[in-house]
Amino acid sequence: MKKTKDHHVVVVGGGFGGLYATQKLGNRKGISVTLIDRRNFHLFQPLLYQVATGGLSPGDIASPLRAVLNRFRNVRVLQATVTGINAPEQTISLGEDIIKYDSLVIATGAHHHYFGNDQWASNAPGLKTIEDALEMRRRIFRAFEAAEREDDPGKKRSLMTFVIVGGGPTGVELAGALGELANFTLKNDFRNLDPRNTRILLLEGGAKILAAYPDKLSNKASSSLKKLGVDVRTETLVTAIADGQVRMKHGESEEIIEAETVLWAAGVKSSSLSKALVETTGAGTDRSGRIVVDPFLNVGDFANIYVIGDLAHFAHQGDDALPGVAPVAMQQGRHVARLIRDRLRGKEGSAFKYTNKGNLAVIGRNAAIADVGPFKMSGWFAWLIWIFVHIAYLIEFDSRVLVLFQWASNYFTRKRGARLITNEKTV
Amino acid sequence: MKKTKDHHVVVVGGGFGGLYATQKLGNRKGISVTLIDRRNFHLFQPLLYQVATGGLSPGDIASPLRAVLNRFRNVRVLQATVTGINAPEQTISLGEDIIKYDSLVIATGAHHHYFGNDQWASNAPGLKTIEDALEMRRRIFRAFEAAEREDDPGKKRSLMTFVIVGGGPTGVELAGALGELANFTLKNDFRNLDPRNTRILLLEGGAKILAAYPDKLSNKASSSLKKLGVDVRTETLVTAIADGQVRMKHGESEEIIEAETVLWAAGVKSSSLSKALVETTGAGTDRSGRIVVDPFLNVGDFANIYVIGDLAHFAHQGDDALPGVAPVAMQQGRHVARLIRDRLRGKEGSAFKYTNKGNLAVIGRNAAIADVGPFKMSGWFAWLIWIFVHIAYLIEFDSRVLVLFQWASNYFTRKRGARLITNEKTV
Repeated sequence: MKKTKDHHVVVVGGGFGGLYATQKLGNRKGISVTLIDRRNFHLFQPLLYQVATGGLSPGDIASPLRAVLNRFRNVRVLQATVTGINAPEQTISLGEDIIKYDSLVIATGAHHHYFGNDQWASNAPGLKTIEDALEMRRRIFRAFEAAEREDDPGKKRSLMTFVIVGGGPTGVELAGALGELANFTLKNDFRNLDPRNTRILLLEGGAKILAAYPDKLSNKASSSLKKLGVDVRTETLVTAIADGQVRMKHGESEEIIEAETVLWAAGVKSSSLSKALVETTGAGTDRSGRIVVDPFLNVGDFANIYVIGDLAHFAHQGDDALPGVAPVAMQQGRHVARLIRDRLRGKEGSAFKYTNKGNLAVIGRNAAIADVGPFKMSGWFAWLIWIFVHIAYLIEFDSRVLVLFQWASNYFTRKRGARLITNEKTV
Repeated sequence: MKKTKDHHVVVVGGGFGGLYATQKLGNRKGISVTLIDRRNFHLFQPLLYQVATGGLSPGDIASPLRAVLNRFRNVRVLQATVTGINAPEQTISLGEDIIKYDSLVIATGAHHHYFGNDQWASNAPGLKTIEDALEMRRRIFRAFEAAEREDDPGKKRSLMTFVIVGGGPTGVELAGALGELANFTLKNDFRNLDPRNTRILLLEGGAKILAAYPDKLSNKASSSLKKLGVDVRTETLVTAIADGQVRMKHGESEEIIEAETVLWAAGVKSSSLSKALVETTGAGTDRSGRIVVDPFLNVGDFANIYVIGDLAHFAHQGDDALPGVAPVAMQQGRHVARLIRDRLRGKEGSAFKYTNKGNLAVIGRNAAIADVGPFKMSGWFAWLIWIFVHIAYLIEFDSRVLVLFQWASNYFTRKRGARLITNEKTV
């Protein structure tokens, strides 16, 4: 570990990109790795919506970074916040501590973003962290609890109205899970309300939901959602969110909906480290603040600084950047590890090339859509593929078994046992 | 539900006492039940220390009350805080709402208590709620993370010192779990510290730990803890807890220990509702504020008000009250349901009698003690009994399977996958 002749790689961020890079550099001769993350766990973000809707517990989709990486003797994990980067000096700072690197991999991802309306944050929580998911879970189940105690019909209706902003995969998956919850899971649980009267609106600014998919699958997803009672509204822009109200615009017509619970699944913005990175490397950024990288995932003129995952803008076809999804981050993570090893051997390495293995989104039980090369699928079989792909990519063996069991149990009983309301200020 | 001729039982508290009473009254003709709890879930408190030490997730040991009770059509669940009781009028208040009852069962339990030193609360969190357990988990794993980054030997030692106050079952189980963690789970996880140097102190004011057990088993527990590196100190009183320091007294000698993490497993006090209850019924209380009940679990002169579980002081042998443990609450819960049904039929019913089926405490893998009637056991077999009793009493089938699998996995791999540090203010 302390051998100074080792090539020292600092990886910032333990998401898919950073973790895959670190694993690929693990136990390699002549290399030592320091992985730095603000959290002590890797989070399987694609299943975060399951935590938000009470289907899984945080522990099921988060794995302690130390546990995942402890077999690599050349890897050191630090829970810390990177506060600065100095590219010419090859150092990063963690508050007062300075760490010297030979190669630097930045994989700090993105957080959600309100298009300049930061005041919406408190009324419409997003979904990027475990705490976000628990906040959503709290609001969803709290709303039903309050509705059960409410006798005023208008107030009750507002408590039972959920507005989801953003028709991408997260928004669609949240809407589907809420639909299942209202129609099946909670069916017999209340005495003073009928959960099937729950109103769920999914608002999308563009012409269709799941814009990345072919029209046919997108339409299929729309009709699956409608079957679950979700009111899907495309070309609809949110213009205001205040306590208990959402104002929206569709063409010229405006509408105000009374809704106690608004969930945000729309914009993402690059993490706060991007500013420091731009200053020290002179890298370019795109509209959402993502760092523009070259074909070797490098930034500016620094061949030893790599940016990967959601934080990177990698020009794909013409101006189109690769999307901020897990497969891109994983492949970039592995590629960056190969590049570092190639360069240590004096080779230039190859440019990064993304292999799109397909897109998957789930709407509900037996309902998913899959766009895998020439195969466009929907329904039960797509749902099965979705299940197995997500299980397979969970990092730890016991997470896989636990999540598989939970899903099997939720499937047959339609239960969602993790619907706890925790960390409330007052009840 | 709304039939006014039904006998209306209001149960306050969804712990073991309240839940067992409600289940036993479920789907009984002529009875309707309202169960009120501040939380929306039943918590399996005996396993809370597993959440605090990263072995289980909150979802594994908590079950939504609505899900557990939804098959009883005569049961209504309300998530609310009871703010007042009026015994002569037969009403309780939930803020502005007033609810009329025919019979009232109070089962609001106890919370921890610092013997008049409430200023210790922020330095030494207790273990009664999910949030308490997550706070302990955060402090324990945060301390190791900070120690990994600390180079000053004194500071590092203080970060790796854990003081547990109270040698009852909770303190012993916490100490055992911490010992396992330090000696096995974290063994390979750090590069800049050796977890086996962790210092764990268990402080008990009395002459022995696990005072309720025969001396032989108590000594056995002590030696099991010592094998895990726990420094067990009896007849030791804590006199001060401040940031990073614990001051203790053993006979005439005083000692100060530098310890960043102090965990409180000592006193409990009755819940805040007891004051309101005393005022309206004239009931007596004991030293810790528990309500003195008669042989029929009634208080004052009110034959339709019952107090059960940790909140009740039930005179057992002479002045000795029954201990605040789950089996007592379960049996009282079932008994109170029988009493209510008997009285509806014009019978007086029988006085409550506790059947002690035995005591169990666990120290670590393969190490537990069991005091079951004539059988005094320790070691592997006692540990197996402990496992199966705890699995059997988990409320829901899927919790049982999940916990069993988690334990099997933790047993073979010594992992604790749920050791997430969440809800931190800053990192």
